[in-house]
Amino acid sequence: MKPMNVGLLGLGTVGAGTFTVLSRNAEEIFRRAGRPIRIVVVAEKDVARANEITQGACRVVDDAFSVVSDAEVDIVIELIGGCGVAKELVLKAIANGKHVITANKALLAMHGNEIFAEAQKQGVTVAFEAAVAGGVPIVKAVREGLSANRIEWIAGIINGTTNFILSEMRDKGLSFDTVLKEAQRLGYAEADPTFDIEGVDAAHKITILSAIAFGIPVQFDKVYIEGISQLNAKDIKYAEQLGYRIKLLGITKRTTAGAELRVHPTLIPAKRLIANVEGAMNAVVVQGDAVGATLYYGKGAGAEPTASAVIADLVDVTRMHTADPEHRVPHLAFQPDQLVDLPILPIAEVLTCHYMRLRVQDEPGVLANITRVLADEQISIDALIQIEPGEGEDEADLILLTHLTREKRINLAIVKLEKLSVVVGKVTRIRMETLG
Amino acid sequence: MKPMNVGLLGLGTVGAGTFTVLSRNAEEIFRRAGRPIRIVVVAEKDVARANEITQGACRVVDDAFSVVSDAEVDIVIELIGGCGVAKELVLKAIANGKHVITANKALLAMHGNEIFAEAQKQGVTVAFEAAVAGGVPIVKAVREGLSANRIEWIAGIINGTTNFILSEMRDKGLSFDTVLKEAQRLGYAEADPTFDIEGVDAAHKITILSAIAFGIPVQFDKVYIEGISQLNAKDIKYAEQLGYRIKLLGITKRTTAGAELRVHPTLIPAKRLIANVEGAMNAVVVQGDAVGATLYYGKGAGAEPTASAVIADLVDVTRMHTADPEHRVPHLAFQPDQLVDLPILPIAEVLTCHYMRLRVQDEPGVLANITRVLADEQISIDALIQIEPGEGEDEADLILLTHLTREKRINLAIVKLEKLSVVVGKVTRIRMETLG
Repeated sequence: MKPMNVGLLGLGTVGAGTFTVLSRNAEEIFRRAGRPIRIVVVAEKDVARANEITQGACRVVDDAFSVVSDAEVDIVIELIGGCGVAKELVLKAIANGKHVITANKALLAMHGNEIFAEAQKQGVTVAFEAAVAGGVPIVKAVREGLSANRIEWIAGIINGTTNFILSEMRDKGLSFDTVLKEAQRLGYAEADPTFDIEGVDAAHKITILSAIAFGIPVQFDKVYIEGISQLNAKDIKYAEQLGYRIKLLGITKRTTAGAELRVHPTLIPAKRLIANVEGAMNAVVVQGDAVGATLYYGKGAGAEPTASAVIADLVDVTRMHTADPEHRVPHLAFQPDQLVDLPILPIAEVLTCHYMRLRVQDEPGVLANITRVLADEQISIDALIQIEPGEGEDEADLILLTHLTREKRINLAIVKLEKLSVVVGKVTRIRMETLG
Repeated sequence: MKPMNVGLLGLGTVGAGTFTVLSRNAEEIFRRAGRPIRIVVVAEKDVARANEITQGACRVVDDAFSVVSDAEVDIVIELIGGCGVAKELVLKAIANGKHVITANKALLAMHGNEIFAEAQKQGVTVAFEAAVAGGVPIVKAVREGLSANRIEWIAGIINGTTNFILSEMRDKGLSFDTVLKEAQRLGYAEADPTFDIEGVDAAHKITILSAIAFGIPVQFDKVYIEGISQLNAKDIKYAEQLGYRIKLLGITKRTTAGAELRVHPTLIPAKRLIANVEGAMNAVVVQGDAVGATLYYGKGAGAEPTASAVIADLVDVTRMHTADPEHRVPHLAFQPDQLVDLPILPIAEVLTCHYMRLRVQDEPGVLANITRVLADEQISIDALIQIEPGEGEDEADLILLTHLTREKRINLAIVKLEKLSVVVGKVTRIRMETLG
């Protein structure tokens, strides 16, 4: 059968990984796909580097726009990233009737609705397994593997940098700043780590997962996002003592009032499998009404793990290349005319349990004052732990775990608590999930 | 679009679950599949029970053969089990040009080559996600999600009954027989538990996984099978002390000499995620050359988890119903003309580390005798732990962990060790895997 011709945009880490894996496993992939898949042209600004990697195996150009209108190219792989030129290129490729494979989570989280609509109009596929959790085939699992289910919620460790930092903080009892520097030195965090540590990258990914889980448009602007840069090593330690781990989770949940869509540090029971996912690894738990909880784990970043997802898409798209669009899996798992407009709940309306740490004066009546405030806000307490003050200290840490409480009540309570004379400084609050 | 008409054979636990989930989630499934999927006829010997479940929503017949030749039926779901009438029905359905979905691991592990060849000839699909690890979409992950990879090995907890028993033995320090009775009482083990506890069920599943991982025919007769009925609680305890857990694993591995295909109790490092899979849950680790290790976890049995997999296949088959066969994923992941005849290694040729427990007399020279035997067989020792004899005992347990050793050497050494006068009774040997 005629080979499938691919144009690759961007030969950075993932691009080079894709080139390498596709060459190395050409025979294995051919045995599966039933026809050769070959990269015929690479677009890369750094032409010298590109030539060194491709070794003359394909054309190298510095103009990506020439690739998306190249008559020889059947499928375009976009690995440039960002929402600028990458968006233009993807839309142009679609307009030219080419299938697109991308690892660009920011692009899809922010412009997915437009891009998928254009693809639908042109009868082409935009595949994006690599956009979430790298090599873990989570998009396929949710869109196809669990299609019998009404999906109830998804919770995932979908950013390796922050999971590495949290693992190190817990293991070594170090502060966020110290571990971040170490992570940067080891290459687990970028020079400007903002997108990772502030939860933006995880928010892109959970936006995509929410859309394919519930059949709703991507709505990145509605995600509540809180990163880990303010996290105190103390809370990691206390959580541990109480049988919990703190993880940065992307969470999306279906409720009768709407969908939750949020990224924040979360206390989860240490006995859950996902609580034991350490280092830069990713893991996603999907709760379906029929299947219960399933978990998917693996490397969420890196050249070859991400290439693994890109090439899996390539094999899928190759297989369906000449099939009618109706035979393909819909972009957002549900048929385009079946997407619904489930509202995204504001974080104030979200119901979770909460961990709170208060610095209090070690004197009589403190607990009475605090529990009064909580009672007034109808917040029910699950556990209350007073940490013994250190030698010679007259202040102590007080840990509170609440039952399920709507966030706005907690916010009101925190304002009142911080006004109490026995409470010193700010109240720390971390949301909890049982994932049960 | 015209509804897809399904004939369901067998309305036992999984059949009833499939009926229930398909009814309950009809709308959600329609939103995904783009057309209604409806069960039009059910074949069940117990017609009264069937009528109670279906409540008149479809025809009920007691003759399954009438369903596989029913002109109204597009897809047959076979949930009868076993290799007798189920095989006849599946082949007849295929001959009649109907797609087949089955959860029947025994049938596919033993007769898959014949069945897939017939399906290929007739241009129909035989889908079998439910045959391995219940609701966990592991077949899809291996066949499609990891298609970029040269798969190196798969190791899985793919029998819930034995994992439940092993978890209980470890947790409560109880013997195999005691826990088995408890498992039977709770419904985790069947009245005749042989297939589960002796590893046959896991062997069916790893046979299927080996075929789709490496592109080889199913070869159930070549699986080395060892169950857990001979496992001593003592070894679980010692393993724990050394930082290991004992799990019944199905393992298949590609080596230069051939493929390994085996089921046996296995020591694995306690820190591995899969070592922390407890109770009746399933988990499968797949190692690919590009992606590294990925893990898939969830319920491996039960009405609705298994129905989840059956219906996911139903949606896939529905989507591809009228597509050319070349657009479909090949049954064994690789194109039929691309299957290879990788030989399956006899267990004697398999290379693993080993745990050995010897009961030895507590006297001078014992270690010298034992280590001499191992040195003669060129077995290299990784660790040697002498357990203090109990109060007043003159025999002690000696634990040996070996480096990678070919099994036949270990077998020879065991024969020699058991002949030593200082060694009391039989030597216990359990294979180890680092899964690293």
